[in-house]
Amino acid sequence: MSTAENTAENYSGDLQRQMLALGAAARAAATILAKTPTAAKNKALLAAADAMRAGAGAILEANATDMAAAEQSNLSKAMLDRLLLTPERIEAMAKGLADIAALADPVGAVMAEWDRPNGLQIARVRVPLGVIGIIYESRPNVTSDAGALCLKSGNAAILRGGSESFHSSRAIHAALAAGLAATGLPEGAIQLLPTRDRAAVGMMLTMPQYIDIIVPRGGKGLIERVQNESRVPVIAHLDGNCHVYVDGSADLAMARNINLNAKLRRTGICGASETLLVDRQCAASHLGPLVTDLLEGGCEVRGDGEAMAIDQRVVAATEADWDTEYLDSIIAVKLVDGVAGAISHIDHHGSHHTDCIVADDTVTATRFLNEVDSAILLHNASTQFADGGEFGMGAEIGISTNRLHARGPVGVEQLTSFKYVVHGQGQVRP
Amino acid sequence: MSTAENTAENYSGDLQRQMLALGAAARAAATILAKTPTAAKNKALLAAADAMRAGAGAILEANATDMAAAEQSNLSKAMLDRLLLTPERIEAMAKGLADIAALADPVGAVMAEWDRPNGLQIARVRVPLGVIGIIYESRPNVTSDAGALCLKSGNAAILRGGSESFHSSRAIHAALAAGLAATGLPEGAIQLLPTRDRAAVGMMLTMPQYIDIIVPRGGKGLIERVQNESRVPVIAHLDGNCHVYVDGSADLAMARNINLNAKLRRTGICGASETLLVDRQCAASHLGPLVTDLLEGGCEVRGDGEAMAIDQRVVAATEADWDTEYLDSIIAVKLVDGVAGAISHIDHHGSHHTDCIVADDTVTATRFLNEVDSAILLHNASTQFADGGEFGMGAEIGISTNRLHARGPVGVEQLTSFKYVVHGQGQVRP
Repeated sequence: MSTAENTAENYSGDLQRQMLALGAAARAAATILAKTPTAAKNKALLAAADAMRAGAGAILEANATDMAAAEQSNLSKAMLDRLLLTPERIEAMAKGLADIAALADPVGAVMAEWDRPNGLQIARVRVPLGVIGIIYESRPNVTSDAGALCLKSGNAAILRGGSESFHSSRAIHAALAAGLAATGLPEGAIQLLPTRDRAAVGMMLTMPQYIDIIVPRGGKGLIERVQNESRVPVIAHLDGNCHVYVDGSADLAMARNINLNAKLRRTGICGASETLLVDRQCAASHLGPLVTDLLEGGCEVRGDGEAMAIDQRVVAATEADWDTEYLDSIIAVKLVDGVAGAISHIDHHGSHHTDCIVADDTVTATRFLNEVDSAILLHNASTQFADGGEFGMGAEIGISTNRLHARGPVGVEQLTSFKYVVHGQGQVRP
Repeated sequence: MSTAENTAENYSGDLQRQMLALGAAARAAATILAKTPTAAKNKALLAAADAMRAGAGAILEANATDMAAAEQSNLSKAMLDRLLLTPERIEAMAKGLADIAALADPVGAVMAEWDRPNGLQIARVRVPLGVIGIIYESRPNVTSDAGALCLKSGNAAILRGGSESFHSSRAIHAALAAGLAATGLPEGAIQLLPTRDRAAVGMMLTMPQYIDIIVPRGGKGLIERVQNESRVPVIAHLDGNCHVYVDGSADLAMARNINLNAKLRRTGICGASETLLVDRQCAASHLGPLVTDLLEGGCEVRGDGEAMAIDQRVVAATEADWDTEYLDSIIAVKLVDGVAGAISHIDHHGSHHTDCIVADDTVTATRFLNEVDSAILLHNASTQFADGGEFGMGAEIGISTNRLHARGPVGVEQLTSFKYVVHGQGQVRP
């Protein structure tokens, strides 16, 4: 056996032992968390918020290290924006922890209860899912949001942050760990993988004895790898190839506002629109102003031949553009035959995430809302509202594009399971 | 290339083509079913019930063929009971179809709605899951129940019945197909695989483009195969290793009733109890009568040394007995140290399906209900109530032992997903 092979084996064995120990600690913590009173979970969250504010300097320093490395690796502007922490963003994370503490505790909540004619009293009661593994990429704030959401919902969390945000995530995790310690909750409640080794991800996906759910957050490559390899159920957050469809019945001023906001308010979030569909009926009057707004906002506009013919500032789109989530200041534009054309285009190219219709005609709008098969459908409102907080659900761990369990924003309620509790007085089944 | 290889390849190619055509037909049907009004779905269900009653003779004949083969293969008594159809059981299936027609249509139901301070109106609306693949074993009535539940919930069904029930399932499926035809709904809405080839199961598990959810119904071997091989999300119905725990505070008469009913009312169903746990505190007074009832009911009683010492009619259990779902007239008996001992035993050996405590003391009962992690927990009622119908949810496709999406009885509501529909008046996100 060569020395190199020997080393590789030892290293892999070490990693495996480390991962199994981490899994066992999470499982043990989950048993405790399932019985932990709301007050203790909230105290830990508030203590973590304090620790995060107190440690803001260290977090910014760690983030500067990550940003320097990211700039050297030529990450895109959108990626750099995702990675960047500022004092304001750290304060937003700390406030997020306090907001999660203020949410109603889902555990133990009675979702429904009813009596049967035979006297049985049935209740459906929320319980935690168990141990949640979160695998994410550049955004360091996922460390804080995901850890806190899992804690509030009585689940243990195993966090695997992106390599680019390694130092930022460690500094943020330290604040969460301080919150747990201050409250006497187990360290195993929120663990961050202490390694950048990609093999650790593969191990997380094959530890169903220790991990109940995997939530991947990131690009298509990550999600597809997780979906293909995981032996643990996955709540997937696939990409958000979101559309704004401007119907012939749309109010132009409203359409301009929504289109501009949906695309450019923040380009790096999953609810940002990526394609603008315009009804042929109003293209002559509406396309020009819509394109002007985008260009003046610094957005590149790529269109099909028809769009280019109407507005010569539109550059040529390729077929790939209809399927691309730019997460950047680029938009694809296409003319369609009314709402049927829009539904058909979204059916072929959409990612079932978030889509919007701008229309005054309610019959047309209702058809769009009924027939487009996406997690979130908006009528006369910006796609950038696709967010758990904007829905009034509190912070979220992602926007699920699954059809099972959780679809759309995944907040504390979506991180629970339930059980049926039945009270009888001696009933037997005839 | 040898002739044998050539044939095998062609056969496999044929099967694959057949399966892909079946999948495409299901997907096309699902698109239609998602928009099919409640009245049309109900009409098809009632027409199927009529066809089933009219075709009862043919169904019994087909079942006789299956039963004869099953008896020759020495299937267990419990398996034969599952396979057997009688005029009463056919009438029960037909009535089941009418009962499902009478259920509220889950599709389009508004699960929740609320307004946001910015004027956005948010609704969570039920939509079908899409195409559901059901893979089951001996019980032919699953054909009728599962097909009807999928239809009512707006989903297309691909059914793969067990080899033993092949002829019975085909005859039952013919009645469902007649119901669809009478209503002008597509044949693809409920399809039964026309082959016993086990390779077809593998293909179902790897057609995520055509099948959204797999529901396996059957023994551990089937479920494990499906969970290991499936590239499609699985709603698993694992085994029901159900427990009745008789606490020291239990009323003896109530405990005797519940124990006898839980074990022997029907031994072949997943809610049948498999292990009786008795509190050491009341073993001297309670164990004898409990065992007498079981023996007089024709049940073999296997116990640990302590149980054997108290009642010599108890025969020796092995370690494997604690983990066995007999589905037969056999029970395992063990003495435990109060509710803590019962919780610990169930934690180690249970299948998280259905467990019962018989106790007068409500503090003890509450601890059991809170701390045992099963889909259904009963206090002072028989485990045989673990059934969607008994819960008032209508017919069910199974009792899910998943923690995600559906836990416990899987009825029409559990066969749906949802989407968020948001109405605005031009809102953009600040």
